[in-house]
Amino acid sequence: MDKFDYIENPHRRYNPLTGEWILVSPHRSKRPWQGQVEKVVEDVRPSHDPNCYLCPRNERVGGENNPDYKDVYSFQNDFSALLQDTPKGKFEDGELFKAESESGVCKVLCFSPDHSLTVPEMEVDNIRKVVDLWCKEYDELGSREDIGYVQIFENKGAIMGCSNPHPHGQIWASALVPLETSKESETQKEYFDKHGRTMLFDYLNSELEKKERILVENDSFVALVPFWAVWPFETMIISKRPVSNLLELTDEEKTDLADIYKKLTIMYDNLFEVSFAYSAGLHQAPTDGEEHPEWHLHMHFYPPLLRSASVKKFMVGYEMLGTPQRDITAEGAALRLRELSKVHYKSKTK
Amino acid sequence: MDKFDYIENPHRRYNPLTGEWILVSPHRSKRPWQGQVEKVVEDVRPSHDPNCYLCPRNERVGGENNPDYKDVYSFQNDFSALLQDTPKGKFEDGELFKAESESGVCKVLCFSPDHSLTVPEMEVDNIRKVVDLWCKEYDELGSREDIGYVQIFENKGAIMGCSNPHPHGQIWASALVPLETSKESETQKEYFDKHGRTMLFDYLNSELEKKERILVENDSFVALVPFWAVWPFETMIISKRPVSNLLELTDEEKTDLADIYKKLTIMYDNLFEVSFAYSAGLHQAPTDGEEHPEWHLHMHFYPPLLRSASVKKFMVGYEMLGTPQRDITAEGAALRLRELSKVHYKSKTK
Ligand SMILES: O=P(O)(O)O[C@H]1O[C@H](CO)[C@@H](O)[C@H](O)[C@H]1O
Ligand SMILES: O=P(O)(O)O[C@H]1O[C@H](CO)[C@@H](O)[C@H](O)[C@H]1O
Repeated sequence: MDKFDYIENPHRRYNPLTGEWILVSPHRSKRPWQGQVEKVVEDVRPSHDPNCYLCPRNERVGGENNPDYKDVYSFQNDFSALLQDTPKGKFEDGELFKAESESGVCKVLCFSPDHSLTVPEMEVDNIRKVVDLWCKEYDELGSREDIGYVQIFENKGAIMGCSNPHPHGQIWASALVPLETSKESETQKEYFDKHGRTMLFDYLNSELEKKERILVENDSFVALVPFWAVWPFETMIISKRPVSNLLELTDEEKTDLADIYKKLTIMYDNLFEVSFAYSAGLHQAPTDGEEHPEWHLHMHFYPPLLRSASVKKFMVGYEMLGTPQRDITAEGAALRLRELSKVHYKSKTK
Repeated sequence: MDKFDYIENPHRRYNPLTGEWILVSPHRSKRPWQGQVEKVVEDVRPSHDPNCYLCPRNERVGGENNPDYKDVYSFQNDFSALLQDTPKGKFEDGELFKAESESGVCKVLCFSPDHSLTVPEMEVDNIRKVVDLWCKEYDELGSREDIGYVQIFENKGAIMGCSNPHPHGQIWASALVPLETSKESETQKEYFDKHGRTMLFDYLNSELEKKERILVENDSFVALVPFWAVWPFETMIISKRPVSNLLELTDEEKTDLADIYKKLTIMYDNLFEVSFAYSAGLHQAPTDGEEHPEWHLHMHFYPPLLRSASVKKFMVGYEMLGTPQRDITAEGAALRLRELSKVHYKSKTK
């Protein structure tokens, strides 16, 4: 019998951040696709859309008007999933029926007044303003007694449930630590207690030696396909220095975060020459008043596209009932992304 | 301050089967939808489609021809994610890079020779044949030394990544127990060791007393919206008798499983008068050679539609990075489903 080889044979990989395994079927990438094909939207938008509730000066659903903002702008979500004035309390009936109230704040963050832009098409200086807004919000919300975690994220593209193409992100800040970050808190704490270094510091240094999953780096950050990636082109941005949250970044590091955010999303857009959909978000220390030396700042990117601008990976069936599964290896995905031009495909055709 | 009320206020609910919490935002169901709208496909299909690789007598991708089958038919998936001849082995580099080979069998199960049908439109007698095929496959695959878990499931509808509308399901049988079932194994074991009864036996009896989340029942099974449902119209079918797998069902119980599968999926189709997409699957005892008195047979249904035939719930952004979230309560969903006609909308218009 041949020797097991994770580039060729079906296998499980361990995600040390969640403590969970995923399934990889490398041989399956050749399967023809006869299923649903996504609409590819010709992505030409005006700089200002009178019907967009995120553009400067326009009216929002709540009746308010946006100011004539010039760079970034944040406001409370008109349809917040979390509310500030939720009465505290629990419902418990035996071990099997448990509910507890959750409160918090949901905000919308406009990345630019220009409706036509996306992150990879913005200037680094302007993305830096987005990073500064993240810092301000993390600081303000995180300082509040009633906020234990500040989740900053971006849903991009209609196939990712994004209801407006205006460049924007969101924050959901909650009293309690959400599910995914509480898994990462636990695994990172265990690792830090054992080794005295953050898990992602050691992980990043191993990856920088191995090189096969690295996409791009600058002085302060690295973008890579994690060994345990489950979405076809899933990536992470990891800070080289072990910082637990955005507020510990130096001025230069903040600009470097903006820079790598742009570089990675240019790769994404160039992959299928389409504005690449994803959910992305920062994972950093909870704001529960404790020190978190075990936490290492990073950003996850979960893009759904699999083999073209119109064919996505469906996380259904076996994935929902069994184990998340992918068809191409992390190494194969990294190779394809790394080979792409560093110049955005749209600017080349101009 | 008002008292906390889980019908009105944002809150977290505990899922005792996974040991994880979900987020509920009851007030958010009023939010208007400006995002992606799914195609609603006019669902009229011939009884035999010459281009369908699941119809009797037609050629499959692998070059083989299907037999002229008269009820149900199963065969090995031409694009199996798991393979039988995978070399055994592990790859380990420190604590952060771990992979191990996984082997198994993937099968496709045709539910009927009639291309035009779906489960809710089939006769109970014919669905019973599907149940019998599940039993046969669970028995045969589960008896093998190299199979530790047999995952039976159905992906229905193009928006659930289903690549062929011919009524069919799948089996992915693996050497190792998948992620979701291993969570359920642990929680059910803990409960059983403590109480000497299965968790779902106690849960079901509480729900039958409370009544507010029950949808439909027969002598052997109950369909309900679990207290911790996260998809808008997520449901479960639970056996009244604590049986750990399909093979322990009596003849009458097998027919009752077919009956409730039909009744539940009729409700689904009637909700938006459209062939309702979902991923569904059986969860039952691992086939690892051990006794599993803690395991209680059940079937999960995860349907994506939220507010109409064309607007689905996106599990993105906060859901991927934080906590799965829903906009309507389990109780509200149960009420809507329960009120629907028990007769399929298509048979009424005939
Ligand atoms: O095997 P199919 O139906 O082609 O594929 C579908 O079901 C599989 C199992 O749930 C998923 O892994 C695929 O992403 C999905 O498209
Ligand atoms: O708030 P939006 O952009 O309208 O909504 C989108 O993002 C939310 C947070 O990830 C999700 O809960 C919704 O399902 C999705 O449609």
